[in-house]
Amino acid sequence: MNTVITGSGCFIPSEIKKNADFEKHTFYNANNQPILQDTAEIVTKFKQITGIAERRYVDATMTASYIGALAGAAAIKDSGIDAETIDQLIVAHNFGNVSATTSQADTVPSLAARIKHEIGIKNPGCVAYDILFGCPGWLQGLIQANAFTKAGMAKNCLVIGTELLSRVSDKHDRDSMIYSDGAGAVVTQPGHGDSGIIGYSAASFTGKELQYINMGKSYCCDNNDGTNYLKMQGRKVYEFAIIEVPLAIKSCLEKNGIEINNVKKIFIHQANEKMDEAIIKRLFALYGITEIPHNIMPMNIHELGNSSVATIPTLYDMVLKGVLPEHSISKKDIIVFASVGAGMNINAVCYRV
Amino acid sequence: MNTVITGSGCFIPSEIKKNADFEKHTFYNANNQPILQDTAEIVTKFKQITGIAERRYVDATMTASYIGALAGAAAIKDSGIDAETIDQLIVAHNFGNVSATTSQADTVPSLAARIKHEIGIKNPGCVAYDILFGCPGWLQGLIQANAFTKAGMAKNCLVIGTELLSRVSDKHDRDSMIYSDGAGAVVTQPGHGDSGIIGYSAASFTGKELQYINMGKSYCCDNNDGTNYLKMQGRKVYEFAIIEVPLAIKSCLEKNGIEINNVKKIFIHQANEKMDEAIIKRLFALYGITEIPHNIMPMNIHELGNSSVATIPTLYDMVLKGVLPEHSISKKDIIVFASVGAGMNINAVCYRV
Repeated sequence: MNTVITGSGCFIPSEIKKNADFEKHTFYNANNQPILQDTAEIVTKFKQITGIAERRYVDATMTASYIGALAGAAAIKDSGIDAETIDQLIVAHNFGNVSATTSQADTVPSLAARIKHEIGIKNPGCVAYDILFGCPGWLQGLIQANAFTKAGMAKNCLVIGTELLSRVSDKHDRDSMIYSDGAGAVVTQPGHGDSGIIGYSAASFTGKELQYINMGKSYCCDNNDGTNYLKMQGRKVYEFAIIEVPLAIKSCLEKNGIEINNVKKIFIHQANEKMDEAIIKRLFALYGITEIPHNIMPMNIHELGNSSVATIPTLYDMVLKGVLPEHSISKKDIIVFASVGAGMNINAVCYRV
Repeated sequence: MNTVITGSGCFIPSEIKKNADFEKHTFYNANNQPILQDTAEIVTKFKQITGIAERRYVDATMTASYIGALAGAAAIKDSGIDAETIDQLIVAHNFGNVSATTSQADTVPSLAARIKHEIGIKNPGCVAYDILFGCPGWLQGLIQANAFTKAGMAKNCLVIGTELLSRVSDKHDRDSMIYSDGAGAVVTQPGHGDSGIIGYSAASFTGKELQYINMGKSYCCDNNDGTNYLKMQGRKVYEFAIIEVPLAIKSCLEKNGIEINNVKKIFIHQANEKMDEAIIKRLFALYGITEIPHNIMPMNIHELGNSSVATIPTLYDMVLKGVLPEHSISKKDIIVFASVGAGMNINAVCYRV
């Protein structure tokens, strides 16, 4: 029994926040010292490293569960299934619903319960729960769906990733320019043919890596109100990711007897363009290959930034829907999904279209 | 392949908060009106309905992940397994880490990642993630472990429930007397004999039930600081639970061909003594049985209150360790776990010792 993706959807918020919009911010470093460099220069350098030119923010009325429901409903429609036949509704996020006016998260009821309500699914047998696994949470949700499918404990699953990083960003931290809002989703169904999840790998590195991505005070001086923001030790995350993600992908391919040359596309969590390029380079270097196949890695980070759990399902949906015309996938293609994020967690899934 | 519980552990906080300690509180109703009844009378009536005489609170230095690690380490020790052989570390909670001084939850990195770090597990192959499913989250975690075991995707799993409800309680709400802090855990391993999980049922009711348990303002007048607290529509929760939990248990038993008379113990989420008694009464009534078997339902709510996801694994551990001398279970006994909570979610697991 294979776990087959039979539909996808995403929600891309309409507000475009351009890099130039950050030029009026005052940035501080982790030691709470103002960064003396000209802000326009900071923004230019940021673009060079991350590839991000703009990102999307939701409006003040929206929540993570609200946009998650929009993405989920789109995936259900795309798959053509009756929503009432969904057995598992799995929602990955990391911050719950954070409103525009308060820092306190709202996770009761779970986002999955709210999304099920919002979509209008009535069947009590549709079990709705949230998983927290850092940015790789959506991909881990897909692995969960696969486990329940393989165990014969579920048939149709809806796996959603939704996050509003704009609500947990410190505007005095240059990393705030990375963060974006978004939601993406897929429907999975059991299949008996060749299509579906071939295999996966997953790992949690929780030694010295535990605090590479965490919550901390604003970098600015007036940071004593107790509010915490998303914080990254960027250099350490980068060095960790470019070693461990290629190894996780290679492990996933090898465990399942897949040659690297047979991989058509690699959908990597949209964290940082330079980092993702370095991951691909290192992956092929592990096989002694120095020439990276043309167009192996779709990217949407330039316009969409890093929306955490939402990046991979959004990117996948965009490729499937022809929004990125230089990328396409066909029946029988082997593709790879891979992610890295807070925990630090890493995962990879090999999939035959 | 069966999923067998091979060890259990719990952490019971040392601070005892007695009912009498609430007599100095000023209680308000959901309409923000002071409750004019004498507080001592309120407390006496509370005891009559819920059975709760005292509950436990952690000290200000502790977090949900900290006490979850203590419970998890106890379960590992009890099982005798090498902690480095754990494939999945599943942590159920609903509020993340909430400190004693701020209402903002901390969920990055996940509590599972922190617990893995705290226990000192180094193997990156131990995948650590959180699940949010209301009070039934721990039991859902056990169902997750079962799915991964049945799918051949995991062997040894550590399933922890940890919650500090004292950190999200509104002291002006009578329901605050229900809430308690605690953590419980089990280790599961694959087995080929008769022992293990026989079957389960799970459901999410997210129509009108969605907001039966949610977050809301303090009932007191000075409630405009934006902080939200755990709120319950007690009557609706009660009426829902006494109908749906018996049906979920019966469904679980019937799907797996188990006679009600062969059930030795039923471990129900410790929400409210009267409610749990009504659930048992209704369950047996579904089979036309009016005489409830003696000692079928262990309870620890009198001294421990309702600690959300922690109640069932804590109760199970107490029975296994002989802390409740009127209750014991023996090899080959069939027992049932069942829970209900925010979502609204319900689940039940049939297990052969």
